[in-house]
Amino acid sequence: MSYTIRQMAALLDLGYQGDGSRLLTKVAGWNAADDTSLIFVHGAESRVFHAEGQRAACVIAPKMLASVAANMIFSEQPRLDFARAASYLNPWPKSRGTRHATAEIAPGAEIDEGVELGPFVVVETGARIGQGSILHAGVVIGGACCIGKECILFPGVVLYPGAQLGDRVVLHAGVVVGSDGFGYASDGKKQWKFPQVGSVIIDDDVEIGANSTIDRGSLGTTRIGTGSKIDNLVQIAHNVEIGEHVVIASQTGISGSTIIEDYAVIGGQVGFGDHARVQSGAVIGSKAGILPGKIVRGGEVYWGVPVRPLREYKRLNALFGRLPEMKAEIDLLKKEVAELKGSPGRK
Amino acid sequence: MSYTIRQMAALLDLGYQGDGSRLLTKVAGWNAADDTSLIFVHGAESRVFHAEGQRAACVIAPKMLASVAANMIFSEQPRLDFARAASYLNPWPKSRGTRHATAEIAPGAEIDEGVELGPFVVVETGARIGQGSILHAGVVIGGACCIGKECILFPGVVLYPGAQLGDRVVLHAGVVVGSDGFGYASDGKKQWKFPQVGSVIIDDDVEIGANSTIDRGSLGTTRIGTGSKIDNLVQIAHNVEIGEHVVIASQTGISGSTIIEDYAVIGGQVGFGDHARVQSGAVIGSKAGILPGKIVRGGEVYWGVPVRPLREYKRLNALFGRLPEMKAEIDLLKKEVAELKGSPGRK
Amino acid sequence: MSYTIRQMAALLDLGYQGDGSRLLTKVAGWNAADDTSLIFVHGAESRVFHAEGQRAACVIAPKMLASVAANMIFSEQPRLDFARAASYLNPWPKSRGTRHATAEIAPGAEIDEGVELGPFVVVETGARIGQGSILHAGVVIGGACCIGKECILFPGVVLYPGAQLGDRVVLHAGVVVGSDGFGYASDGKKQWKFPQVGSVIIDDDVEIGANSTIDRGSLGTTRIGTGSKIDNLVQIAHNVEIGEHVVIASQTGISGSTIIEDYAVIGGQVGFGDHARVQSGAVIGSKAGILPGKIVRGGEVYWGVPVRPLREYKRLNALFGRLPEMKAEIDLLKKEVAELKGSPGRK
Repeated sequence: MSYTIRQMAALLDLGYQGDGSRLLTKVAGWNAADDTSLIFVHGAESRVFHAEGQRAACVIAPKMLASVAANMIFSEQPRLDFARAASYLNPWPKSRGTRHATAEIAPGAEIDEGVELGPFVVVETGARIGQGSILHAGVVIGGACCIGKECILFPGVVLYPGAQLGDRVVLHAGVVVGSDGFGYASDGKKQWKFPQVGSVIIDDDVEIGANSTIDRGSLGTTRIGTGSKIDNLVQIAHNVEIGEHVVIASQTGISGSTIIEDYAVIGGQVGFGDHARVQSGAVIGSKAGILPGKIVRGGEVYWGVPVRPLREYKRLNALFGRLPEMKAEIDLLKKEVAELKGSPGRK
Repeated sequence: MSYTIRQMAALLDLGYQGDGSRLLTKVAGWNAADDTSLIFVHGAESRVFHAEGQRAACVIAPKMLASVAANMIFSEQPRLDFARAASYLNPWPKSRGTRHATAEIAPGAEIDEGVELGPFVVVETGARIGQGSILHAGVVIGGACCIGKECILFPGVVLYPGAQLGDRVVLHAGVVVGSDGFGYASDGKKQWKFPQVGSVIIDDDVEIGANSTIDRGSLGTTRIGTGSKIDNLVQIAHNVEIGEHVVIASQTGISGSTIIEDYAVIGGQVGFGDHARVQSGAVIGSKAGILPGKIVRGGEVYWGVPVRPLREYKRLNALFGRLPEMKAEIDLLKKEVAELKGSPGRK
Repeated sequence: MSYTIRQMAALLDLGYQGDGSRLLTKVAGWNAADDTSLIFVHGAESRVFHAEGQRAACVIAPKMLASVAANMIFSEQPRLDFARAASYLNPWPKSRGTRHATAEIAPGAEIDEGVELGPFVVVETGARIGQGSILHAGVVIGGACCIGKECILFPGVVLYPGAQLGDRVVLHAGVVVGSDGFGYASDGKKQWKFPQVGSVIIDDDVEIGANSTIDRGSLGTTRIGTGSKIDNLVQIAHNVEIGEHVVIASQTGISGSTIIEDYAVIGGQVGFGDHARVQSGAVIGSKAGILPGKIVRGGEVYWGVPVRPLREYKRLNALFGRLPEMKAEIDLLKKEVAELKGSPGRK
């Protein structure tokens, strides 16, 4: 897609300076920018920017940097507005509405006319796929799955039977949705599988990274709310409820029935015990561990195993690093007290 | 499958009350239960149960709750007996014995007549697949693999050449079995690959979660014992030996040549160094770290990095949280001792 | 492949004793060795070796063990030289140059004649694949990808459009290369996707384990240097730069723009914050955590969360285990000081 600087500034509802008729065709980084590229600067980069100049067609930057480039869209949040601009310049690809001859569509699947199916796609009985969705090579859609409009499923995605996706859901390569949850009951000799017959619902505008796994509910439902973003190799267990606009970084694992409320931000390699709850807006640092049943309050930053408010974690970690000094002080005190006890002033 | 309450109670070897001829067709959660559903209650739920009543055909519950429902199967372990009941009402699907026209079977593969092959399945030369097994879409079976009876391989499972599965093994979508182990020898300039030419054996009734990876042995064998259950995104390295009825939760990684004995229970995101050993019945909490060569004794619960008995871990963790108080106490003692040393009573 | 003992010793540039004309056809472990097997011994095994003897055709061992076997290749680094020997006896399979009838090759893809394509392989427009490469069943190569010579891509590997592989790159089953990085900018209501339009380059002789994920650069490039080896289920984020001959064990995650310099060795389940840097030759122990922006100096061993030099970590961990004693000593000191303060010798 291409827009003039004037059009882009209007779309972003921002001011600009320079040649408003100049054409933008793509976003770019500094090094790769050419004369139709839109770039952005933020804080620390501005000095380099001064020194090196740029070849880009236009730069998104704070107004205070107005002198450094002829064509500029003014923004106090250049990274955000650059991302917004990218949604126009580099949008998700649109379905071509083609079905590869090798795609296997079972009788009874309802596939909207505008859907694109790649080679070796499999759609099983009773599945429904909405207008404008793209299923890349080798995607497997189980029976009775329901996929909304304009979803993109990258190669090798697997939906177990009955999984439900809203609109504009993006699943990267190798994502598995609706696999059995991990639940067993032991009779002392063997493990009996606890039934994993629930459902899984992924709401609109969710994006899930490569090779992540989302289990179905055991008896209830696993749900990921509108606009939430999940990185690669993340595990979401049965009956987990993730709210809206939640962000979860790579390799984090969320155990059964845990609830993550809206706008929470979760770092990478975090582990959640089951039946925990993260309240709206909480931020949990990478590698944190949350005990089963734990409630993490909203509006604060947490860290550590088990998880603690960041300020407390930092203080404890600093003292952990000073354990040798503490030990030495105790040893010295012991010596001094022993001397005091044995001193002439004491009987 | 469907059973009367009387039949089900007999199958479970449990008593019941109410209409023994009432038909059960499925297990369900409370919310989704209808008049042919079997549900269960345990402890904390019983109050809700009293208050709300239920629509289910029958409930599995302790006898002490006999007054709350007309149709009840009595159990002192309702969750276990519910899981047992589910094995009858919601069993694994049976092979339809069909082979999709697109399945590619190499000459020399021996596939039992009762096997079901989905679209785009690949079976290479010399592989054998036993009666009643199901290979879903896109499964790839390497040369000379051996798969037992009534196994279920979900879409996209890959078996490297020579992998061996027992009977009733369930591999969820994206599982890889028999990939090369991770071993190299450095000559100071480059890494030489240590040969990864061993085998991998997965015994009867093992279930492995989505996108988990099981490496073959380097020279020896990687083995997972009968009835063991492994969650999603778990890594089992070369030459690991896992005993029988072991349970391993998501994102745990087990390094080369480590041994996990029968009935061990391993939490999520646990990491094992190589050549460690977990003795029978040990329970290891989530996110624990086990050093290379470490022996973890059976019959106890462990936690932490490096792993410690839970009681010890809890005490240390509590003291860790009290480091600021300990620091303050030391500072006060220093001041007091300094005063004592300078006091009139002392020369 | 097969070689005589004499030929093999010459290839390895090592001395030998015994029957130089004896044929070696494979490497093996002790238990599985037969009369054409090459085995090796190192330190601790030599006693067993004495006691049990062996059936192998030849053993690689230090010269000091010359008495224990008739046929021996002398090496002071038996494991390394065994790995070198394996590169001759058990080399990577060679392409058969066959294209399975079901492979889907888009017009405009350039595939060298010597390439082997398995069933259901997909190669999209503009992709180029070099001489001798093997793409196993179900591999998907996005448009404009570039794959060098003698690469091996195991079943189900996915390359997003534009990904570049050097020569002799090995990607195990389920590896995803070039997926979108994880970057968003929040406007307080929703997450805007930061553009993920960069590239990904994997240099010669890299090997990547099953189900690992390598994201493309957001605006720049993600790069993995020559000879680096990556284990299963590893996450490499956007714009990460990994140097040459780096080793990274399973389930480690590396956040955006972090740099790992040449010859670093990274354990399993390690987590890196973004914009960190690991200098050449550093060794980082399993489960370590590296804070964003942290610089880890080369030539040392690190451990812990946050990461510390191993010696320091060990001391701190030992003191952590002695917290109960320290607490008891403080309590005793408090009591003694209180007594001293109240004692007759003091006013």
